[in-house]
Amino acid sequence: MMNKKDLSFREKIHEIIFEADTPEGKAFDVVLLVFIGLSVIVVMLETVEFFNQRFERLFYFLEWSFTVAFTIEYCLRIYSIQKPWKYIASFYGIVDLLAILPSYLSLFLPGTHYLITIRALRLLRIFRILKLANYLTESAMLAQALRASKRKVTVFLVTVMMVVLIIGSMMYLIESGQDSGFTSIPKSVYWAIVTVTTVGYGDIAPVTPLGQFLSAVLMILGYGVLAVPTGIVSAELVHAQSDVSNKLNTISCPVCSKEGHDSDALFCKFCGGKL
Amino acid sequence: MMNKKDLSFREKIHEIIFEADTPEGKAFDVVLLVFIGLSVIVVMLETVEFFNQRFERLFYFLEWSFTVAFTIEYCLRIYSIQKPWKYIASFYGIVDLLAILPSYLSLFLPGTHYLITIRALRLLRIFRILKLANYLTESAMLAQALRASKRKVTVFLVTVMMVVLIIGSMMYLIESGQDSGFTSIPKSVYWAIVTVTTVGYGDIAPVTPLGQFLSAVLMILGYGVLAVPTGIVSAELVHAQSDVSNKLNTISCPVCSKEGHDSDALFCKFCGGKL
Amino acid sequence: MMNKKDLSFREKIHEIIFEADTPEGKAFDVVLLVFIGLSVIVVMLETVEFFNQRFERLFYFLEWSFTVAFTIEYCLRIYSIQKPWKYIASFYGIVDLLAILPSYLSLFLPGTHYLITIRALRLLRIFRILKLANYLTESAMLAQALRASKRKVTVFLVTVMMVVLIIGSMMYLIESGQDSGFTSIPKSVYWAIVTVTTVGYGDIAPVTPLGQFLSAVLMILGYGVLAVPTGIVSAELVHAQSDVSNKLNTISCPVCSKEGHDSDALFCKFCGGKL
Amino acid sequence: MMNKKDLSFREKIHEIIFEADTPEGKAFDVVLLVFIGLSVIVVMLETVEFFNQRFERLFYFLEWSFTVAFTIEYCLRIYSIQKPWKYIASFYGIVDLLAILPSYLSLFLPGTHYLITIRALRLLRIFRILKLANYLTESAMLAQALRASKRKVTVFLVTVMMVVLIIGSMMYLIESGQDSGFTSIPKSVYWAIVTVTTVGYGDIAPVTPLGQFLSAVLMILGYGVLAVPTGIVSAELVHAQSDVSNKLNTISCPVCSKEGHDSDALFCKFCGGKL
Repeated sequence: MMNKKDLSFREKIHEIIFEADTPEGKAFDVVLLVFIGLSVIVVMLETVEFFNQRFERLFYFLEWSFTVAFTIEYCLRIYSIQKPWKYIASFYGIVDLLAILPSYLSLFLPGTHYLITIRALRLLRIFRILKLANYLTESAMLAQALRASKRKVTVFLVTVMMVVLIIGSMMYLIESGQDSGFTSIPKSVYWAIVTVTTVGYGDIAPVTPLGQFLSAVLMILGYGVLAVPTGIVSAELVHAQSDVSNKLNTISCPVCSKEGHDSDALFCKFCGGKL
Repeated sequence: MMNKKDLSFREKIHEIIFEADTPEGKAFDVVLLVFIGLSVIVVMLETVEFFNQRFERLFYFLEWSFTVAFTIEYCLRIYSIQKPWKYIASFYGIVDLLAILPSYLSLFLPGTHYLITIRALRLLRIFRILKLANYLTESAMLAQALRASKRKVTVFLVTVMMVVLIIGSMMYLIESGQDSGFTSIPKSVYWAIVTVTTVGYGDIAPVTPLGQFLSAVLMILGYGVLAVPTGIVSAELVHAQSDVSNKLNTISCPVCSKEGHDSDALFCKFCGGKL
Repeated sequence: MMNKKDLSFREKIHEIIFEADTPEGKAFDVVLLVFIGLSVIVVMLETVEFFNQRFERLFYFLEWSFTVAFTIEYCLRIYSIQKPWKYIASFYGIVDLLAILPSYLSLFLPGTHYLITIRALRLLRIFRILKLANYLTESAMLAQALRASKRKVTVFLVTVMMVVLIIGSMMYLIESGQDSGFTSIPKSVYWAIVTVTTVGYGDIAPVTPLGQFLSAVLMILGYGVLAVPTGIVSAELVHAQSDVSNKLNTISCPVCSKEGHDSDALFCKFCGGKL
Repeated sequence: MMNKKDLSFREKIHEIIFEADTPEGKAFDVVLLVFIGLSVIVVMLETVEFFNQRFERLFYFLEWSFTVAFTIEYCLRIYSIQKPWKYIASFYGIVDLLAILPSYLSLFLPGTHYLITIRALRLLRIFRILKLANYLTESAMLAQALRASKRKVTVFLVTVMMVVLIIGSMMYLIESGQDSGFTSIPKSVYWAIVTVTTVGYGDIAPVTPLGQFLSAVLMILGYGVLAVPTGIVSAELVHAQSDVSNKLNTISCPVCSKEGHDSDALFCKFCGGKL
């Protein structure tokens, strides 16, 4: 059994690190976000030759400082929480670990430290400081709309993959002799994806009349096809929204017990009784 | 007349090949899908020079193994089914045949064996193993929304084709003297399609001020135009969904036990009985 | 005053040329469409060097044959109709004239005969042969949805034009020293339109960090902005559709005279009276 | 205290400059718009070498004329209005100032005078001459739909930024050795934005198989992701429109004369009186 002081110390840390209600907790979260932001910017600038030549040592120092700070924070989180494994296995726990791993990994595998930008995911904590609940509702609504359309999207994606595979192969057959970049079927499939999503880099582009005709067909197809996921998500969101507004506005009349009144109604619209 | 044993043997094969309810049937379908996937991957890798140089013989062997296996499977399907012609003429029957034809065809016409990727269509069987019914409902709903908007889409496509044809010709007139790739009207029309669908490869791009002005107009047009098919499909899906949710909200009539009443109905709309 | 025979001859021609109900009228329309299609294809192929070298004389002959045929048809239309000026000033009348003008114009202004592709507009007559009414309803619905959103689209387009103008100028300021194609403000505005509509040719692309940052902002903006016209049209179409379905389903109850019954209702859902 | 004449002079100017109801006010607004349009065109043409070589002096003269005219107008606005600071701090006041600043600024900082195109924003006054109220309603509706979806769009944008940051870094790791333009993480993030918004310039494009695979994933993702903001705005607009149409269907209560009742209401929902 732990003594009183130790317990309260752990509790204090827990309060500061995990909650954002107290002034200290909020300050901690803000400082943490600034640190995360800075550390991501440092890694990004480090890859720009202009800055790297001038500040290589500074960047190196800063990167390790942030990594050490985040490591300490990670340990404190595990130390202060009641059920450490639950935190470690949670989404945020995994992100927190992934945010420090690449630095240590880069000691053995050079280059991997660029994966530090995975720290950016920690910035998701920003929603905790803002009026959290509201954003969570919105996120939940978006997530639910996406989940509700999961099956439709699966059917849609499988169809797109097949179209892309088959048209990619046909384009390889048509264009492979030319100097137009269709050097293998995987590359042609890559081109078909670039085309059907309307990205259109132009690094690979058909040059034969037949190839151009087929890709025009693919574009028109992709055009119509683009409408499908948008339509799916739109329909789900319209649905979700009318659900929400229906649920928020329903009080049953105490006289005739009918429902369906507006939120600003004072009297029942069916029998005239006071609500 | 066939003897008992032969009949049950055919029935057994039918059960394994055509149905996915028994463990053997399910196992067969899974193995089949793996084979199809592998054979598609083999054809794709075969076109990548890096792999082809190293594994040419292996690829050749694998491709023919898969083809022979699929041929045997195709024959067994015809052998085991009651009405072979119905299967042969069905969508899956045609796909199954198309999946083996290119290999044999390539003996006479070199190159055509890349069409083997048409086998990918066989992967559509994957929906049979997954909780089939649900996906079929979703597919049917998508298909129905598309079918319902068929006429609108036709009107829309015809309009787009005309715009593309006319603007393509005008661009040819404007840009044909320049070194910007507008070498013929078909090519200019191809460029107009690339532009209006917002793919924008950049292999053909206007260089004269007038040409750039006209293509800016086309883009803004294409921008607004892109909204139309999306709007069509969205509206159909919203419609389809509210139809479904209306059907879900129903109570069956205690008198005639029919369903499909509105949520605010007090009397059965079919027999007039009180709900 | 005309004699009987002349009148009936004019009427006969009118029936054949303007209507599609009689067998002759339908046949005429089909032949006309084939001729229009062929003449457009001829003009397109004429610009392809491969075909032009081989069939220059044939193309020349065909083009003038079609032009003469269309001229005769145009004269017959004017001759056979009661109120010629109404036809001449109508949409179809103007299109019919525009379809023959470029050929004659090309005698004086070489090159302009490529505008013959304007004939493609005559293909719109195809809707007259197909089950006309249905397509007209759909067209009308699309046109109405677009008209209903005219003001919203105007507001939207004006906003986009300003954004494009201002960001284009800023990019000129930033990138004009570089070798990245931003050689004047009009060209930069052209680039901004290419970017905001997500076409992205890549013939002009920023190379400075600041320019790339600004164009990333423009893209994200364009991304959100793309949602607006789609949303507008979707909302209008959802609206238009529910209007149509509401109008089709409304019968008022003879007993309580309430409305809002489904199209399959036999009894009033409010009072149970027979509809 | 001012004398009568001076006051009425100020009032007169105020009426002409700020209002569009009187003939003089309308004429002033039209002339102003023409001047704004011309001055923007002058700045644009000035950057086109062809015109600049020929009309450099004319452009210089015109630009300063417009600037002086607009400066006088700005002073008159401040002079004639009751509460000058309210105007200066308003949206239009700031735009009016920004429209003349760059010219004077260019005396000290060469080049900045291209920012004069910010004058284009003044063209927003065009809505004041057109049937103002209608367009304002439409703008307000669009603005409200966008405001209503603000939180959803924030959640959405934050998610996109993270995806773009992480995939950008991974691409840098994969492609940095190659000659494909991924020279730093910021540049790779720029590429990721270009890709996810489906702009696709092609100035930076992956060349390694792994890079092409990852960017294909990003495109498919961006494809689905594109559906989200469109869906959000569509849903909001459908919602806004049905709100409007509900409000249009209203009857005012004969007792309390309030409006906003549902179409199926029998009693006033505010006072309970029979409708």
